[in-house]
Amino acid sequence: MSKVKIIADAIKNIPWEDKPSGYHAPVWRHSQNPIIDRNPAKGISRIFNSAVVSYGETFIGVFRAETIDGRPHLHLGYSDDALSWSIEEVGIDFVDETGKAFQPNYAYDPRLLKIEDTYYIIWCTDFYGASIGVAKTTDFKTFVRLENPFLPFNRNGVLFPRKINGNYVMLSRPSDSGHTPFGDIFLSESPDLVYWGKHRHVMSKGGYGWWQNVKIGGGPAPIETSEGWLMFYHGVTGTCNGFVYSMGAVLLDLDNPSIVKYRSKNFVLTPEESYETTGFVDNVIFPCATLHDGETGKIAIYYGAADTRVGLAYTTVDEIVNYVKATSETVADDATVGRM
Amino acid sequence: MSKVKIIADAIKNIPWEDKPSGYHAPVWRHSQNPIIDRNPAKGISRIFNSAVVSYGETFIGVFRAETIDGRPHLHLGYSDDALSWSIEEVGIDFVDETGKAFQPNYAYDPRLLKIEDTYYIIWCTDFYGASIGVAKTTDFKTFVRLENPFLPFNRNGVLFPRKINGNYVMLSRPSDSGHTPFGDIFLSESPDLVYWGKHRHVMSKGGYGWWQNVKIGGGPAPIETSEGWLMFYHGVTGTCNGFVYSMGAVLLDLDNPSIVKYRSKNFVLTPEESYETTGFVDNVIFPCATLHDGETGKIAIYYGAADTRVGLAYTTVDEIVNYVKATSETVADDATVGRM
Amino acid sequence: MSKVKIIADAIKNIPWEDKPSGYHAPVWRHSQNPIIDRNPAKGISRIFNSAVVSYGETFIGVFRAETIDGRPHLHLGYSDDALSWSIEEVGIDFVDETGKAFQPNYAYDPRLLKIEDTYYIIWCTDFYGASIGVAKTTDFKTFVRLENPFLPFNRNGVLFPRKINGNYVMLSRPSDSGHTPFGDIFLSESPDLVYWGKHRHVMSKGGYGWWQNVKIGGGPAPIETSEGWLMFYHGVTGTCNGFVYSMGAVLLDLDNPSIVKYRSKNFVLTPEESYETTGFVDNVIFPCATLHDGETGKIAIYYGAADTRVGLAYTTVDEIVNYVKATSETVADDATVGRM
Amino acid sequence: MSKVKIIADAIKNIPWEDKPSGYHAPVWRHSQNPIIDRNPAKGISRIFNSAVVSYGETFIGVFRAETIDGRPHLHLGYSDDALSWSIEEVGIDFVDETGKAFQPNYAYDPRLLKIEDTYYIIWCTDFYGASIGVAKTTDFKTFVRLENPFLPFNRNGVLFPRKINGNYVMLSRPSDSGHTPFGDIFLSESPDLVYWGKHRHVMSKGGYGWWQNVKIGGGPAPIETSEGWLMFYHGVTGTCNGFVYSMGAVLLDLDNPSIVKYRSKNFVLTPEESYETTGFVDNVIFPCATLHDGETGKIAIYYGAADTRVGLAYTTVDEIVNYVKATSETVADDATVGRM
Amino acid sequence: MSKVKIIADAIKNIPWEDKPSGYHAPVWRHSQNPIIDRNPAKGISRIFNSAVVSYGETFIGVFRAETIDGRPHLHLGYSDDALSWSIEEVGIDFVDETGKAFQPNYAYDPRLLKIEDTYYIIWCTDFYGASIGVAKTTDFKTFVRLENPFLPFNRNGVLFPRKINGNYVMLSRPSDSGHTPFGDIFLSESPDLVYWGKHRHVMSKGGYGWWQNVKIGGGPAPIETSEGWLMFYHGVTGTCNGFVYSMGAVLLDLDNPSIVKYRSKNFVLTPEESYETTGFVDNVIFPCATLHDGETGKIAIYYGAADTRVGLAYTTVDEIVNYVKATSETVADDATVGRM
Amino acid sequence: MSKVKIIADAIKNIPWEDKPSGYHAPVWRHSQNPIIDRNPAKGISRIFNSAVVSYGETFIGVFRAETIDGRPHLHLGYSDDALSWSIEEVGIDFVDETGKAFQPNYAYDPRLLKIEDTYYIIWCTDFYGASIGVAKTTDFKTFVRLENPFLPFNRNGVLFPRKINGNYVMLSRPSDSGHTPFGDIFLSESPDLVYWGKHRHVMSKGGYGWWQNVKIGGGPAPIETSEGWLMFYHGVTGTCNGFVYSMGAVLLDLDNPSIVKYRSKNFVLTPEESYETTGFVDNVIFPCATLHDGETGKIAIYYGAADTRVGLAYTTVDEIVNYVKATSETVADDATVGRM
Repeated sequence: MSKVKIIADAIKNIPWEDKPSGYHAPVWRHSQNPIIDRNPAKGISRIFNSAVVSYGETFIGVFRAETIDGRPHLHLGYSDDALSWSIEEVGIDFVDETGKAFQPNYAYDPRLLKIEDTYYIIWCTDFYGASIGVAKTTDFKTFVRLENPFLPFNRNGVLFPRKINGNYVMLSRPSDSGHTPFGDIFLSESPDLVYWGKHRHVMSKGGYGWWQNVKIGGGPAPIETSEGWLMFYHGVTGTCNGFVYSMGAVLLDLDNPSIVKYRSKNFVLTPEESYETTGFVDNVIFPCATLHDGETGKIAIYYGAADTRVGLAYTTVDEIVNYVKATSETVADDATVGRM
Repeated sequence: MSKVKIIADAIKNIPWEDKPSGYHAPVWRHSQNPIIDRNPAKGISRIFNSAVVSYGETFIGVFRAETIDGRPHLHLGYSDDALSWSIEEVGIDFVDETGKAFQPNYAYDPRLLKIEDTYYIIWCTDFYGASIGVAKTTDFKTFVRLENPFLPFNRNGVLFPRKINGNYVMLSRPSDSGHTPFGDIFLSESPDLVYWGKHRHVMSKGGYGWWQNVKIGGGPAPIETSEGWLMFYHGVTGTCNGFVYSMGAVLLDLDNPSIVKYRSKNFVLTPEESYETTGFVDNVIFPCATLHDGETGKIAIYYGAADTRVGLAYTTVDEIVNYVKATSETVADDATVGRM
Repeated sequence: MSKVKIIADAIKNIPWEDKPSGYHAPVWRHSQNPIIDRNPAKGISRIFNSAVVSYGETFIGVFRAETIDGRPHLHLGYSDDALSWSIEEVGIDFVDETGKAFQPNYAYDPRLLKIEDTYYIIWCTDFYGASIGVAKTTDFKTFVRLENPFLPFNRNGVLFPRKINGNYVMLSRPSDSGHTPFGDIFLSESPDLVYWGKHRHVMSKGGYGWWQNVKIGGGPAPIETSEGWLMFYHGVTGTCNGFVYSMGAVLLDLDNPSIVKYRSKNFVLTPEESYETTGFVDNVIFPCATLHDGETGKIAIYYGAADTRVGLAYTTVDEIVNYVKATSETVADDATVGRM
Repeated sequence: MSKVKIIADAIKNIPWEDKPSGYHAPVWRHSQNPIIDRNPAKGISRIFNSAVVSYGETFIGVFRAETIDGRPHLHLGYSDDALSWSIEEVGIDFVDETGKAFQPNYAYDPRLLKIEDTYYIIWCTDFYGASIGVAKTTDFKTFVRLENPFLPFNRNGVLFPRKINGNYVMLSRPSDSGHTPFGDIFLSESPDLVYWGKHRHVMSKGGYGWWQNVKIGGGPAPIETSEGWLMFYHGVTGTCNGFVYSMGAVLLDLDNPSIVKYRSKNFVLTPEESYETTGFVDNVIFPCATLHDGETGKIAIYYGAADTRVGLAYTTVDEIVNYVKATSETVADDATVGRM
Repeated sequence: MSKVKIIADAIKNIPWEDKPSGYHAPVWRHSQNPIIDRNPAKGISRIFNSAVVSYGETFIGVFRAETIDGRPHLHLGYSDDALSWSIEEVGIDFVDETGKAFQPNYAYDPRLLKIEDTYYIIWCTDFYGASIGVAKTTDFKTFVRLENPFLPFNRNGVLFPRKINGNYVMLSRPSDSGHTPFGDIFLSESPDLVYWGKHRHVMSKGGYGWWQNVKIGGGPAPIETSEGWLMFYHGVTGTCNGFVYSMGAVLLDLDNPSIVKYRSKNFVLTPEESYETTGFVDNVIFPCATLHDGETGKIAIYYGAADTRVGLAYTTVDEIVNYVKATSETVADDATVGRM
Repeated sequence: MSKVKIIADAIKNIPWEDKPSGYHAPVWRHSQNPIIDRNPAKGISRIFNSAVVSYGETFIGVFRAETIDGRPHLHLGYSDDALSWSIEEVGIDFVDETGKAFQPNYAYDPRLLKIEDTYYIIWCTDFYGASIGVAKTTDFKTFVRLENPFLPFNRNGVLFPRKINGNYVMLSRPSDSGHTPFGDIFLSESPDLVYWGKHRHVMSKGGYGWWQNVKIGGGPAPIETSEGWLMFYHGVTGTCNGFVYSMGAVLLDLDNPSIVKYRSKNFVLTPEESYETTGFVDNVIFPCATLHDGETGKIAIYYGAADTRVGLAYTTVDEIVNYVKATSETVADDATVGRM
């Protein structure tokens, strides 16, 4: 039993490997990575930056699939063990609330989570430029698109897995239409998933270290724990030969998640293995989903590797929460609700 | 009596000059421009891009004042004739809804309008970068800031002067944190001025002509007419020596203002006079407010000139509406509610 | 009688003013400049960078007209004295060789000249980006477009007024699709105005002085003189607030005009008057045409001023040729036919 | 026997491997790639983007050799099997038409082909910036440079292997002097390889997919088939860590090759193997030559890999033509002769 | 008699005009500005950013002269009243310490001052890019160049008019080779004008106001006063149409001038007159020299206007010192000696 | 015994491997590279660009350690064989001359050398931007920082291992605050390590080859030989996917090291092995230190590989000096003391 509690259901068949002996860092890789490699299905060139959930006894996922024309789409995938995935060759069909076909021009970097009885997909969509798209499903057969929550330009929309103080809460990273060399994480609230407001700044790029000094963006849906909302995110630094994306971890206040309680000043995973350092985009670790077991505190983190493959990493809620607290540094006005 | 009706109160003392004989264009300048020149008050270097309203028998305005440290603030000004303005040396004090001081870091390009019994100021504020700020007042003494409607980055927020289909409606121009070389006008709705959604694209930069091929942004609060919402806006083109800002005019659908009914393919005023072509920023005409007389159809347009001065121009609702219809060209999907 | 001979017809009614006393420079302005100011005709906002020829007892010209939508077109204009111009409100209609309408998307910076009995217009046209367009006319009523001589991207095409060694010869400035911060003048030959080759480098930007250190471009059609082809051209320098366009002068070898014989190291006219320093693009002098009198050696130079107006300047062939020779500096491999 | 005919001689000893079982895509890699790796000869650091032809019973090639000073030159190479190549340590000596030494400053990305009894090399040469160079040889001993066909800036010149309608035909990609983030393929004609004209746009970057959304450029000399000119080309997309070059395929009209008949919307080969994803320039597949057998329809494609090595891939004319037709999408005005 | 003392000789014939009545700001313009306009001497197009000193009963100056080839040189000028200047047509000849000719490639933005019996010129010179050059003279006939004090890239070198704590002290603005959009003022010491060290940061761009938020640079040689070293400097802000240069004022600690004692948060002069807002570079006020009277406290400030003309402005030591103290805001670590 | 003499002590236990047979180039890799790989110590993610010296019978080094927050620090390391290194987990503590803690904000790319009895570390430090820091130690326990020798912005400071003509001599590469796409090597002198002057240009980027056409920077401390100062350095070229850093070699004049005697036109090592081509920054070889044996002429070169690891390479003084002389090409004014 973990000391820190994850407020979530148990997942008996969560994929798992113990931490290798002699390994120092708080997050460790699955030994058979990548779990999804190039050309995983006919017509699909690369899968990465994707999201999975436990679904009954099995697992289901929404995957960023770059088809052989190089355009990103969302495809469903199925797995019994959350390691070996069967990806559909055809993308998800979205409809509007009247049931009419309503396909996004492109769709990438999905997040997936359940609030009450409904699953929500949040992704980066083309709304006259990069912006946040939202859809819901109860059966993974019909996917109904909702209003785009924000004006362009935005990326990395992440919905919390329950309402807070009666409102839905979404993180996002206001952005521009290119490979933005800046970006902080903000939070917005909605009573109804249609109208959004009470925008607050959550956390800043920067800090003493350099790994997250160019931009940051939310990752998997936050995990509710007895110590706060645990969120893995990506932080980006720049080099003379391009960006490097690493994974960080933060604890947000349970009741007012625009307040950062603890934030590790160190990355918790950085590109080191060849499947992370070399690919369509070199040097990218981009976490988009976790499976986490409310019983044991085990956490399995799914991340995109080099915009080419899917990697898996592990930690426990005790290990990561202790690490974040022990190495915490807040940046700028992270620790406040933020100025208006 | 105009043929096209302006749905608004009469302003008996609206400033006015008839169109000069031999003048072709649909909008003409006040003969004594600029009405506000450099150093209009102690400690204020330049006033421009500002908004005025009729207020009883007199006029009141919210002015973009660049103080002698070069930072923009909002200052009140008063006038009996809407031509000669007395500007306050000290900026507006904002408070939050509890009455506590709540000053923006900077504030520029205000719009000002009345909905029912309340006046609203919308301006460009610093919310971790350029974004839209909103405040309300009923007496021009107490100014209460409301929630920022949108995530950064945004500029040129323009509120409609009445609710449409039960919702407040705001135009804005999603942007980035620099001198954005792109930008279209969007529309958002809110039931309560706190939560905003149903974002729609209204109109695009571009078209056959070149004067608005870099970006466009909303101008004065739209004027309700029998032919649709009449809005003056700015369109920007680029040259090898910088941007040129001209004034355009558009008619939006009364019930669904994300639909452009007519849009003049020509500018209706472009920088030609020395007070418009030379200043802190050369070659800028930036309309922010109108006075318009529901009785006669006279329209007086207040515009910033060269980021240095305030100019005034005139038209009539008949002349401008006919011109917009006669020279109409819609761009991209202007004529639709826009894709999601 | 001039000592240096212009090999061209006499123009009895060439516009003319003597050089002001006490004036040092080799080129002097017309005292009533600009000869064409803003809004010269209904629907035309600005005319500049335009070309004129003597036509019987009168004069005719092809003008860059920026219409009130900001797009450039070619318009005809007529004058009895080459000073006061009547500009057509409607642009030139081009046809292809079968007589079918064949309009360029846009057209700017025309040059105009006569070879044998035919007049040729060369301008900057949209051929998947800025490139050179060519058309011919014998009556200024029917304008037949020929093949575009070059692949994009190119600007400032200038045809010589006679064949040299049996071939047509054209100068141009290879470029890119934006406000190119580089550019030299090249020469190409054609036996038939359809196929072009024997491309040679003529002259480089740069030199000891700074006024032409960013880019250069050909100007009016070269004037044949006893000392070589006399060409006025524009040279561009950069400042922290944009480009400055000045006028230079060069003598090219009569038989092999890819060889520069003399090139003045100084500008011969630079923006100093308010109609040159302030306008749509500040600080531009852009010569596009000359009238030159084979009898007296008088030369009248037509230049665009600030992308807004047309200016006129004067010199004599003796004065300018002597000046160019006396102040000559060749740059890089100007004095050779150029490397391949 | 193939159903689609290649109009070319047989090459009995064309290198060949059958398509691996279970492999979906229409082009497959040689199993022993790269066929030329780093440091292939003394003083040569890298060979890539090179062209080969069948030559009697053996094979000969012109190779882009980056010598140990990092500068690109053209070197000859010889092979009996077209797999194992012997590269000359000294570069090709070019002469002008009088036999005088006439060396280019640098030379890269050669294409090589035979028209009637003469072999032509087309490469990217320094003509005051990147442009197209052409030379001919009949014996691979004397290489005579011809006139540069075009003004700068240009790259990826590709000559057709026979005259069409009596003219030589060359493809090229107008460009600028840097790593141009744009570029389409154009076509030009010449009666004599000296004068060029009748420039036409052939095909555009872009399309629904993203793999060719930044720029495209011609590849090996087009292969004449019963279905049209078959051309492999490169398409480039951008990522936050640089460009990715993939291979595409297109069929051009036999009589009027500025008309695209079919163009696969998918890449047919994209960097996936380590010798393609990692090197001097990561993620580059750049096809420059084919061997193709008029008898069997076998096609061997030589491509540069990561600007470091030479790779080889295979297809058949039936397979690739069917694939291109089955997956065809034309972009912009590809399917027309193009506007002027 | 002023309350604040200037520690300097009297200049009986210092040019002077009293402050206009009703004028608020602490620095006022000479009524006959510009005192040097375009084309002030044969072959000189523009003079600006120049330095003058009192010299016996007359005045002498070193002027930035842009000759008609657009290149900047240093020319001497003479005046009896410091208002009307006679400029030499030929530039200063520099020699090295052996008397051999030693001319800089270009020279601009000179400062001029006397330490003990020697006059020093400091300017921006080409030392493999923009850097600081130094020369000395005792007679304004022989000008001996000294070692360049710093490595490139640097601009705005300003020497103090006496040694401090036994060392020469120079301000400079480390920079890059273009129109640097950043820059702070540093200080360096030298025992011998050959070797320089003890580099300290003096003052930062930025602050609450925006007028100096892009870069700052030293101006005239600091004036020793009883309240500290008084220095006028330039501060630069950016607009979408280019930079704006204004004048600021600061008081540095007498003994340790890397410490800012007071710094006005406001500009003390900003471009407003047409000779300042329009020219070769619009919107520039660039102070390079003062005359100041130790007896009366009068200060005459010479400034470049629009990189085209020389302007003159006045203040008194009492007025400016009081203003700087009353409006003081220090930025970043201005008030300290600065970190290493 | 070598023919060319290294003027230095013997290092009996210098690491060594003979040149592999069949290997052409003058510098060859250690067979067990990298000698330091990722995660070499707890809390340290990457070590590279580091310097070592012989220290008694053992070796000591100053290492650029990128800790797990991504920030660079200097850490000590110890080795008995100069191959296997033990790195301290905690960085070096610096003090000022009074013994007070005086830590740099960050520190990277150290050089390390001994002059007389003192060891000096020179590194890139934050002095309001990238600049050169210097510290000394005699015992590797107390590290005393000295004055920063230069104003920002600068990188790659390299001190010579003895005074020349009575002065300390330092090389550096003036720069800007980003990933500067330009940069030459300069030299400065100091009598006392406090004041620096007599700045001279040493060598330019560029030359016929392309491998060093973007920028160059000094490497290990120069080695005194009978043929001049032998220095390894890095040269950088640009590709469309980023920079490539190779190693070059140069011989400087013994008495006047601003004069280049010989400079190899070829790189002597370029990224080819996977530990050099792939990492945090792909394609980097960055030499920072040598061990060299005065007795045998053996040279061991330590270089950073891909900003991730430490590599080792070998040559002999005879081989490299002969190679540099045999392949010498000087660039621009390398062979002179340089202009002022």
